[in-house]
Amino acid sequence: MKLMQLYASLKSDLQAIEDALASSVASDLPLLNDSALHLLKAGGKRLRPVFVLLSGKFGEYSLDQLKRVAVPLELIHMASLVHDDVIDDADTRRGQPTVKAKWDNRIAMFTGDYLHGKSLVIATELAHPRIHQILSGAIVQMCIGEMEQIRDFFNTEQSVRNYLLRIRRKTALLIAISCQLGAMAAGAPKKQCDILYRYGYNVGMLFQITDDLLDLCGTEKAIGKPPGSDLRQGNITLPVLFALQEPALRDKLLGEIARIQAAGGNADSSAAVKLVRGSAGIRQAEALAERYMAKALKLLEGLPAIPARKNLSDIARFVAQRSY
Amino acid sequence: MKLMQLYASLKSDLQAIEDALASSVASDLPLLNDSALHLLKAGGKRLRPVFVLLSGKFGEYSLDQLKRVAVPLELIHMASLVHDDVIDDADTRRGQPTVKAKWDNRIAMFTGDYLHGKSLVIATELAHPRIHQILSGAIVQMCIGEMEQIRDFFNTEQSVRNYLLRIRRKTALLIAISCQLGAMAAGAPKKQCDILYRYGYNVGMLFQITDDLLDLCGTEKAIGKPPGSDLRQGNITLPVLFALQEPALRDKLLGEIARIQAAGGNADSSAAVKLVRGSAGIRQAEALAERYMAKALKLLEGLPAIPARKNLSDIARFVAQRSY
Repeated sequence: MKLMQLYASLKSDLQAIEDALASSVASDLPLLNDSALHLLKAGGKRLRPVFVLLSGKFGEYSLDQLKRVAVPLELIHMASLVHDDVIDDADTRRGQPTVKAKWDNRIAMFTGDYLHGKSLVIATELAHPRIHQILSGAIVQMCIGEMEQIRDFFNTEQSVRNYLLRIRRKTALLIAISCQLGAMAAGAPKKQCDILYRYGYNVGMLFQITDDLLDLCGTEKAIGKPPGSDLRQGNITLPVLFALQEPALRDKLLGEIARIQAAGGNADSSAAVKLVRGSAGIRQAEALAERYMAKALKLLEGLPAIPARKNLSDIARFVAQRSY
Repeated sequence: MKLMQLYASLKSDLQAIEDALASSVASDLPLLNDSALHLLKAGGKRLRPVFVLLSGKFGEYSLDQLKRVAVPLELIHMASLVHDDVIDDADTRRGQPTVKAKWDNRIAMFTGDYLHGKSLVIATELAHPRIHQILSGAIVQMCIGEMEQIRDFFNTEQSVRNYLLRIRRKTALLIAISCQLGAMAAGAPKKQCDILYRYGYNVGMLFQITDDLLDLCGTEKAIGKPPGSDLRQGNITLPVLFALQEPALRDKLLGEIARIQAAGGNADSSAAVKLVRGSAGIRQAEALAERYMAKALKLLEGLPAIPARKNLSDIARFVAQRSY
């Protein structure tokens, strides 16, 4: 099944989630409505709700229950984007102006806070304290991931392990619990919830490594921002760490990164991007991504062979191959 | 009973909460530990935990249960302070450098996010979904209050009602639910939980109006910051709104406020402060504060006459009289 077909098959349930998202950010405060709706309309693939719905098929599927985890998960994702933009000083995301650029940092900060709070308000409509705890735990871990990223900006001495721990918190965890909570909200057996968590974790790692590769290898048109953005803001990603291990490249690349850092965010990163593209770092990062995909697919074998299982393996492949 | 005696009588339980607060912000990320511990050490009166403990006396008092609401409430309060400081561009709070001044806005933002998340992680250790929902609802309302404050900066046309709605969300709500959740966590009868909520709401309104009066009438030594800070940042408080209603003062005061706004935060607000001090606005705000105190005391009559009831009335009086 193609991804388009998968989305089509989930269309009415995804629409119900979209409606719930819109009403969840509605308040009588125009300032907040505008910023949150802007964020909502900027869209995205609603990947977390898709994982919730598919994982919900392993239990007793109830849209009403699943909505109460899908909406909070997407709101937490949105909160992290809006707070990320404050940090990155980003003026555009997916080709659209960010909340920060359109309003200001203060509004962006409170919009994120509001989305965090609202996500828990909605989840707590489910009388399932363990779900509340997993969601709030994810917010905590994601904040730690964000702070680790700030700590590690321009740190060319960090290890690959360091990078992996950071993206685990920043990205993989939320996808992992999207799968887990979808299954839990549907009352699926604990063993399946655990497998889905681990599947989601591996897909999340795959997702972030692919994202980091795209930032180096994609075109501005495809990724909606100029390539090399990560390097410009000091975010040292996996292909760069691998490239730094090549003796023939190391000093040149260190020099480029130091130059970018010294320029304070306005530098041109294209020379550094070129060095990394010409290194074995790209291939090495791709190989690691493939290992995460293989693990994700392997884990699915432990689940009942219902159609949703096939859908989950299609998504893993899509995540690995996407060019945006 | 004097306030010092009250704190002394709660000493060991407050110490347990203090310890739980310290361990709740401990992580293996030095950047976060430093900023959160700094915030923790800056102290404060731990008013919200005191309300929780006293309200818990109306049910089956269990420190273990009460801790799981007292710590989250104090963490939410701390998160609001740290995010407030980003907005206010404040370099000191209670005479200490702020997280924002000592580190930067990005760290302050994620420290606040972390504290929000952590507060719910701790609260969700209680298998009491309604408590989780009230806490997350409070985060949402407080964010709206913060955004309303931003919206209303330098708005001299706002009504008194507008001001009251804003401080209700910004301050009174968290004190109201401190009382309510203390009682709920102790399994007190619903009627008493409701009375305690309303008592806390009135004390919270009293608290904020008193705070706003102190910013105009207090000395720099007493309040830990130069008087007139609210006006400097555009926060139009109750005494100012009343003063603006005096025909003889209005134009002069509007002129001063416009001058402060035009100077973009670096202005001297002492002329405006002097105008408000010389108006009937101070007395009118005090009168409204007294009405909130009277309501709070009246509500307490609906509760059983245990020692905690007397303590709560002492606190209301203290809040009204404090000079810091």
